[in-house]
Amino acid sequence: MGPIKTFSGINRRIFIWGLAALPALSVTSLPGVAVAQAPSGLLPSWNEGAAKQAILDFVRLTTDRSSPSYVAPEERIAVFDQDGTLWVEHPMYTQVVYCLERVPAIVANKPELKDVAPFKTVLSGDREAIGRLSMQDLEEILAATLTGMSVEEFNAEARKWLETAKDPRWGRHYTELVYQPMLEVLRYLRDHDFKTYIVTGGGQDFVRIYAQQVYGIPPEQVVGTAGATTFGYDKDGKPFLTKEPKLLLNDDKAGKPEGIHLMIGRRPYAAFGNSAGDREMLEWTGAGTGARLKMLLLHDDARREYAYGPAQGLPDSKVGTFTQALYDEAKQKGWTVISMKNDWNEVFPPGTVGSGTR
Amino acid sequence: MGPIKTFSGINRRIFIWGLAALPALSVTSLPGVAVAQAPSGLLPSWNEGAAKQAILDFVRLTTDRSSPSYVAPEERIAVFDQDGTLWVEHPMYTQVVYCLERVPAIVANKPELKDVAPFKTVLSGDREAIGRLSMQDLEEILAATLTGMSVEEFNAEARKWLETAKDPRWGRHYTELVYQPMLEVLRYLRDHDFKTYIVTGGGQDFVRIYAQQVYGIPPEQVVGTAGATTFGYDKDGKPFLTKEPKLLLNDDKAGKPEGIHLMIGRRPYAAFGNSAGDREMLEWTGAGTGARLKMLLLHDDARREYAYGPAQGLPDSKVGTFTQALYDEAKQKGWTVISMKNDWNEVFPPGTVGSGTR
Repeated sequence: MGPIKTFSGINRRIFIWGLAALPALSVTSLPGVAVAQAPSGLLPSWNEGAAKQAILDFVRLTTDRSSPSYVAPEERIAVFDQDGTLWVEHPMYTQVVYCLERVPAIVANKPELKDVAPFKTVLSGDREAIGRLSMQDLEEILAATLTGMSVEEFNAEARKWLETAKDPRWGRHYTELVYQPMLEVLRYLRDHDFKTYIVTGGGQDFVRIYAQQVYGIPPEQVVGTAGATTFGYDKDGKPFLTKEPKLLLNDDKAGKPEGIHLMIGRRPYAAFGNSAGDREMLEWTGAGTGARLKMLLLHDDARREYAYGPAQGLPDSKVGTFTQALYDEAKQKGWTVISMKNDWNEVFPPGTVGSGTR
Repeated sequence: MGPIKTFSGINRRIFIWGLAALPALSVTSLPGVAVAQAPSGLLPSWNEGAAKQAILDFVRLTTDRSSPSYVAPEERIAVFDQDGTLWVEHPMYTQVVYCLERVPAIVANKPELKDVAPFKTVLSGDREAIGRLSMQDLEEILAATLTGMSVEEFNAEARKWLETAKDPRWGRHYTELVYQPMLEVLRYLRDHDFKTYIVTGGGQDFVRIYAQQVYGIPPEQVVGTAGATTFGYDKDGKPFLTKEPKLLLNDDKAGKPEGIHLMIGRRPYAAFGNSAGDREMLEWTGAGTGARLKMLLLHDDARREYAYGPAQGLPDSKVGTFTQALYDEAKQKGWTVISMKNDWNEVFPPGTVGSGTR
């Protein structure tokens, strides 16, 4: 199973941590608060402040023809991490939840796996035992649930799951737990001719399924951790692609600028992230000339979402770690840190979760 | 050197064949014929006939809202092979010419290579000896000229070469030897909201350098044979990417649909090619529902360009081979074969080479 090491783009220790954290989950749904009217003006879910101003200044500087930092429309590329930047990543990456929840279906197709580890352990529902699974066990689960089927079969299964599965804390579909302020930034940048890309450590094929509908980002603008496919023919001679357990791009940390070069071929002018996995992407963006926007979202809002760092004394986390070193680098290099608590007056789309107070 | 096998996406036998063919090259420049006025109407360099009609019909069927084959604008993807489909590939792929012509500069930087094979052989200019180089020798040349430098260094070198090097037959820059009728198709499709992509067996980084200027295709819409890069920092802490001799995508034959899935994530509605290397791409395109355009260019015009097959009794060729089996598959599946001789009244952009007669 060597070739699928880090296939999911998700470190195994993180994976185990995420599982161990689950029992502590609050499953209380927050009541919905209907917001009749969104405030007028630009970026309405953003409070006035340095973060909102940085976005407005950047767009003005790069799109005003009289600006020395003017950027031709075709050069306007903006990249966004997904987990923890565009949608909720705690207590565990949504794609990992998918892989675990797919295990019963995999076993139904191959009953001989029912009494075999690690499938037996996952089926038991014993979270402590699941948390103790070895790396090799977890690789087996990822390979069994993400590869070995045609692209169409995978897409159909994952789409079906996304349409039904719900986050236990809010009782909402995962695709509803996206950040309203970031949706506004995506739209605002596109309104100014920026091409918006997702650059995620998550699986490229997984994110492409819903990126158009949820973020307005087409599949060809989703860069993610990607495995090889193999072209072949079915019994009627019709061609199809099979997803293979062979990693082509581990789109995390240094893999993000490498993935950007492979899939986009231009240096971005704006980059948004929220964890140490985004550091190199922001460095790469910042190393370009002219005005470049580099922003990191700090999850410091346990009431409306989650609070984790360990930067700035926030609780430590192995999912979406925002280290103090990253915080210090941001300050030193003039990157903007967004405080979820202070900079956002709304976290989720109005009417979806209704956790916001204006 | 194991990992760089087929790194260039170019079969070694083809490479050798190309070299051997060079001495037979006509170096006579054809006089330019200025064309004052292009004919009005759509696709003016195309003669009336089945090929032109297939393009017009396809665009009408996919863009007319009342058509049962209507395709939403965001789904409109068209893919084009490059070598032999958009520009001249005979007697040898332009990128291979680049690699050979880069050898003196490589040796100037590393004088210890001067008396070492295969560099010594290439420096000798002895084409017969060059044609006898082993596969390992050729891999060394490709690795030395395409990898081991930063992305910026490679781009600068290749751009400089493209601005100066000329094709010996026409005495024109390689980037001028593009097919006017295909430029018209690219523009016509884009005018109807198709996103046009290059899907080439050639090097992705090489083609991206000139694709915008020559074809109007931005770097992010060039899919090609691609190697890994590695992110690192220079002595001042500035990040850069180094091109590595490690193949990520061999974008030829079955690698073309695999590359389309990796980089685009949608099935194209139109695909243009000219050789057996494009077969799987056309099959993959044709396996979709609705109206799909599948076209193959047959080089049957030795006077204005080249004639090679071996399909339809044309001379055999190991560069851009159009087999009889491919021709038969095209006829059987309803793909359209474009005859350069009969379907095009102009081959190159008017005023560039001037080989056309209307």
